[in-house]
Amino acid sequence: MSSLIGATSFEVFSLWAVLGIAMLGLAYALFLRAQVMGKDKGTSQMQEVWNSIRQGADAYLQLQLKTILPLIFILTAVLFFSVYVVPPSEEALVRFSNYPPGQVRVIIGVGRAIAFVMGAFFSLMVGQFGMRMAVEGNVRVAAAARTSYSEALKIAYRSGTITGMLTDGLGLLGGTLIFMAFGVAAPDALLGFGFGGTLLALFMRVGGGIYTKAADVGADLVGKVEAGIPEDDPRNAAVVADLVGDNVGDCAGMAADIFESYEVTIVAGLILGLGLHALTGELKWIIFPLLVRGIGVLSSIFGTYLVKGESKEKKGSALSSINKGFYASAAVSILAFFALAELYMNEWRAFLSVAVGIVLAIVIDEVTKYFTHTEYKPVKDIASSAQSGSATLILEGLSVGFESAVWQIIVIAATIFAAIFIYWGQPVLYVLYGVAMTGIGMLTLTGNNVAMDSFGPIADNANGIGEMAGLDKEARKVLTDLDAVGNTTKAITKGVAIGSAVIAAVSLFGSFLTDVTKVQASLGIPEVLRIMSTGIRISDPKVFVGLLIGGAVPWLFSSLMIKAVARAASLIVDEVRSQFRIPGLMEGKVKPDYRKAVAICTRAAQKELVGLGLIAVLSPLIIGIVLGVEALGGFLGGVILSGQLLAVFMASSGGAWDNAKKLIEDGLYGGKGSPAHKASVVGDTVGDPLKDTAGPALNPMIKVINLVSLLAAPILIQYSGVSLTSGMIVALLGAIVGGSVLYSKRGGFKQAQDPAAAPKA
Amino acid sequence: MSSLIGATSFEVFSLWAVLGIAMLGLAYALFLRAQVMGKDKGTSQMQEVWNSIRQGADAYLQLQLKTILPLIFILTAVLFFSVYVVPPSEEALVRFSNYPPGQVRVIIGVGRAIAFVMGAFFSLMVGQFGMRMAVEGNVRVAAAARTSYSEALKIAYRSGTITGMLTDGLGLLGGTLIFMAFGVAAPDALLGFGFGGTLLALFMRVGGGIYTKAADVGADLVGKVEAGIPEDDPRNAAVVADLVGDNVGDCAGMAADIFESYEVTIVAGLILGLGLHALTGELKWIIFPLLVRGIGVLSSIFGTYLVKGESKEKKGSALSSINKGFYASAAVSILAFFALAELYMNEWRAFLSVAVGIVLAIVIDEVTKYFTHTEYKPVKDIASSAQSGSATLILEGLSVGFESAVWQIIVIAATIFAAIFIYWGQPVLYVLYGVAMTGIGMLTLTGNNVAMDSFGPIADNANGIGEMAGLDKEARKVLTDLDAVGNTTKAITKGVAIGSAVIAAVSLFGSFLTDVTKVQASLGIPEVLRIMSTGIRISDPKVFVGLLIGGAVPWLFSSLMIKAVARAASLIVDEVRSQFRIPGLMEGKVKPDYRKAVAICTRAAQKELVGLGLIAVLSPLIIGIVLGVEALGGFLGGVILSGQLLAVFMASSGGAWDNAKKLIEDGLYGGKGSPAHKASVVGDTVGDPLKDTAGPALNPMIKVINLVSLLAAPILIQYSGVSLTSGMIVALLGAIVGGSVLYSKRGGFKQAQDPAAAPKA
Repeated sequence: MSSLIGATSFEVFSLWAVLGIAMLGLAYALFLRAQVMGKDKGTSQMQEVWNSIRQGADAYLQLQLKTILPLIFILTAVLFFSVYVVPPSEEALVRFSNYPPGQVRVIIGVGRAIAFVMGAFFSLMVGQFGMRMAVEGNVRVAAAARTSYSEALKIAYRSGTITGMLTDGLGLLGGTLIFMAFGVAAPDALLGFGFGGTLLALFMRVGGGIYTKAADVGADLVGKVEAGIPEDDPRNAAVVADLVGDNVGDCAGMAADIFESYEVTIVAGLILGLGLHALTGELKWIIFPLLVRGIGVLSSIFGTYLVKGESKEKKGSALSSINKGFYASAAVSILAFFALAELYMNEWRAFLSVAVGIVLAIVIDEVTKYFTHTEYKPVKDIASSAQSGSATLILEGLSVGFESAVWQIIVIAATIFAAIFIYWGQPVLYVLYGVAMTGIGMLTLTGNNVAMDSFGPIADNANGIGEMAGLDKEARKVLTDLDAVGNTTKAITKGVAIGSAVIAAVSLFGSFLTDVTKVQASLGIPEVLRIMSTGIRISDPKVFVGLLIGGAVPWLFSSLMIKAVARAASLIVDEVRSQFRIPGLMEGKVKPDYRKAVAICTRAAQKELVGLGLIAVLSPLIIGIVLGVEALGGFLGGVILSGQLLAVFMASSGGAWDNAKKLIEDGLYGGKGSPAHKASVVGDTVGDPLKDTAGPALNPMIKVINLVSLLAAPILIQYSGVSLTSGMIVALLGAIVGGSVLYSKRGGFKQAQDPAAAPKA
Repeated sequence: MSSLIGATSFEVFSLWAVLGIAMLGLAYALFLRAQVMGKDKGTSQMQEVWNSIRQGADAYLQLQLKTILPLIFILTAVLFFSVYVVPPSEEALVRFSNYPPGQVRVIIGVGRAIAFVMGAFFSLMVGQFGMRMAVEGNVRVAAAARTSYSEALKIAYRSGTITGMLTDGLGLLGGTLIFMAFGVAAPDALLGFGFGGTLLALFMRVGGGIYTKAADVGADLVGKVEAGIPEDDPRNAAVVADLVGDNVGDCAGMAADIFESYEVTIVAGLILGLGLHALTGELKWIIFPLLVRGIGVLSSIFGTYLVKGESKEKKGSALSSINKGFYASAAVSILAFFALAELYMNEWRAFLSVAVGIVLAIVIDEVTKYFTHTEYKPVKDIASSAQSGSATLILEGLSVGFESAVWQIIVIAATIFAAIFIYWGQPVLYVLYGVAMTGIGMLTLTGNNVAMDSFGPIADNANGIGEMAGLDKEARKVLTDLDAVGNTTKAITKGVAIGSAVIAAVSLFGSFLTDVTKVQASLGIPEVLRIMSTGIRISDPKVFVGLLIGGAVPWLFSSLMIKAVARAASLIVDEVRSQFRIPGLMEGKVKPDYRKAVAICTRAAQKELVGLGLIAVLSPLIIGIVLGVEALGGFLGGVILSGQLLAVFMASSGGAWDNAKKLIEDGLYGGKGSPAHKASVVGDTVGDPLKDTAGPALNPMIKVINLVSLLAAPILIQYSGVSLTSGMIVALLGAIVGGSVLYSKRGGFKQAQDPAAAPKA
């Protein structure tokens, strides 16, 4: 290949092999899909419920796509034309030296635009296709539960695995293709690819998160709390919206989010690898992460296929089987990495970095478990505090969330420190590369992780279908058991998602340095003045201002997300209340109109998309223009720090309240219906939008901001001479846009002003 | 003076004048004290209640002093002997050139140790004396309320003013004395002075915050919520502890906190001024902040003396009179600053920086008001959300708090940006000096601010005494009115306290740069390698690790504080419950034993002091030793960023919940006893430890960490060659200490496990 000057034949073969593996992963997903689709869909009653869910989910996806398409078009055009502002890099001229410079410009522009669209499309596909598969899976799980525990488990897990393999396959495919086409000129297109993926993931997360919690909180407030009817009761008009929400939030949102982390770590790994390639002339720094990922895909295929329930009845066998699959995958990968380090890399540092990533995934897991699982002290303390009422329960939960954020960040800091240690005495670029490899290592078993995660909402929905379609007791028990297992696997992967987001963001931060330095070099800026030499100095007041404002962005984001859920939930409350008043409905004679609640959630989920997307895209631009590229670096530091702390706090507090409620529902302190239980329901409701809406949306947000900064940096450097006045004008415009977005989004629970209107059950 | 080479006679005169003004401020405080002490203390019944409060407050102060004295002794010794690790600075050798170098070492060591003790003693005195005056004042306010509204107002305000003038006088006295004695060698001693003040303030804040909220939350949970008796009901055994808590928290804690901000801004201003003096040879950069402060003291004396109620009955006249005093002070100061800039400085930039500080104080005020006052949208939205229950109320409040943190940090960022603008094109040192002058400007009217703040708990306590001593309706009305005014003035000053803390911390951060650079210069490190040239580069992975860990510290601190309140409150709940079971108590025939609840709070407040103090003192040392002085700079950046965001979030959410409850109690959505009211009580209880314990303690914590870093920096630089191994050992030891502190502090509401034991009212 012309893109790889100096590649050994093994390296050329490796690249093609990785491409082949990526395809294999996708083929495996299709194979599993065929398996799942061949299964029985159960009775017509089950299919009726399932059809409502499916239609609701589809409507949401379609409306969302319509909302964001214009923005995608605009950004594609901007990315293409941006090459006319900044000339192609030297590497691009080298790579395409057989074309005239004017044409190289077009090639790079088209490449970047196509990569962006590809990233967006892949992310969308993982989300949409994964969610559709989950919906196809859940009714079949419910059907299988009537006859076989192990069959139900297998269908649920394999439906989830399809999404997992899509994530793996598409992420690896995109990165490898771009590298093969662009070679040393790849960073440009890689950034476009990453940006497309993260932006779509942000939209899926924001939309899905608002949808799922508006439905959930709304349904609970008016159903469980006000009318006193159980969860998933068919009389509640929001119950289908709630089931749809599980899919659009936990499935589509989560899958797109992990895909984006998977993608961004490979993008950052390749960019930093290219940096080392420029420094050392060795191609192995680029080939290594691709091979590691390829090995990961193969191990995931192997491990996930092992999972099946061993006996029909043995409780807990599901979890042990899933875990067995995971450990099988892990063992295979580690052995292969070992061989790779010994036989190809001829050094151990890159391997160590990858190994640190695997250890990190395990440690983060344990920390997450400690702070959010029922068997440990924090959740027990929260449950105990429920006895003095909801206020003390909330306080205890906040305190637990705060503390967990501290430990998580110490783990992340230790990981970065490990990279420093591994590359002791080497230039900073090596350390940054090490951090990127840690991210690659951490997400090695993404196939298994996403499978485990998707398993959650599939089992949850199957259980809901079982309840609404009135399955027999035996089948219901199977489904309840699977649902509980799903809650556990879902929680485990959540920690990895947040941890990998930060590592990915730090890698991008590293790419920011190399990228800016390269542009500065091409502009003839002397080496001592380039950012890799000067660094990002928060001791410079301007950079410190960037740091402060960057730190504020995740708080703004979270505030708006929480408000959006609150607003939408109150609309649901009003709707369900008004349907309760339909004669005969409370007696079960008349069915509620589920579609209205679905429509409310669907609309609510779209409303915030563009505003929040603009904050993520515009805020780094404004900072960069007004304060310059170094302050933009400070801004990124602030975003990463604040984003990580807030995201973990919200995830942990929310998870801990949820499980404290479960502890009490299992009989502690009076069990269901006791004052302690009521207090714990308050905690759970508070925690829901924190852990499932605001917290998760911060992951892609952090990365969108980083990628926008990377894309904008060359332009900012090029025009840094332009007077502050124009910067001020931009700032003013930005402030006006931001301000109007903010003010248009204000509001609260005002619509729900008629509690007297709710009938008592 | 030998310390001031090249001083004009005006400058020498100015220094003595400032010293005189500081003394005048103190004399004014004594004069007011004599006035207040001469007033009537009312009936024996009133004095009985008052005596309980006084004894409780005294017991707390004594036990606290006993707890922290050992630490103060150790630190004094450490500060003295630290001069034997790092040789005296060149400036010290110049200043004391008539002594042999060995003796200079002793002089500097003794100076630093004495300054530390002086700072600690002053801080303690402001807190203790101020609190005692508040206690002396409150019974006299209650007594005066029986006959005259204006007299009651005057006594309350003047009692508060005593603390205000102590803050002003002692802060200015210490800074001026140290500068006069040490001249160019002052930074050493100034840092000691600042450290002593902030450390004591931290203890007062932590202890007072835990005390006041343990009593308040405990009393409310078991009294208002469980037994359904009103606030301040004499049958509640925790009611005296609650009144004592207002004094130790809102009075002693707040006064020591503002004193410390006042002191630290002058310390940072002088250090940066000395830096500019070294650069330009001009003494005016040092004299200016002292003169500004002197003018502030004079204006405060003038303005505060104007405050008296105009008519006996006119409601609202109290607030307008207090405001009139404030504006009178502000007008006088601004005119005088103007003259100073024109006649002495011969330039406008320093004046502009001070003016920005005054504007900042006003803007922060407005932002705080917007997010926490009943007349604006956020609090109204929270109140409205109470209709759907406590969960939505909590969510809405969190969202409001998050958003307010965003705006506050943008205001702070704009302030720093203003300093950049004012000193455009000048070296960074000028910008940092500008930020410090902004801090000086912001706290110009500290006398008035503290007076307004202390007015709150004095009026609150007077009202409590009135209720418990059964005063007549007329007098009760006067006291209720004053109490409401106090709530307003208290809230206003809270915003200034947080804002000034961050500006002070940023100034200290600036001092860190100049200080480290100076030490590096004295060690012969070439100029390009000194930190003022290299900067604090978060692009260096080690510094980034520092940033991450620094960002986590405020979260850890807050988590521990919230848990401490929770634990202590549950002890109070148990105690009050068990006293309720005393026969005859609920019928009012038998009096509860108030002292037991007071003792519980007193002990609980001491328990956390040493652990939290050690975190603040040791964490920067560990980072500095393990990761080096530049990473320590990153750590400080993280602490400031995270600390500011968290502190504002907690203060605003807490304040907003509090006022949402008040809105509902005033009749909205069903008023007292309605479901909305119950929901709002939950919000208020959650908000209490956030806004009055964890949030305020972050102010002094941020500054203690900054000052420890400043003090340790020379040693860290000196021994940066020492191998990482020793650093690792220290880190390990630190981790063990930290870990054991953490684990010993774990716990929750477990003690309160017997809700059935509570009798129903």
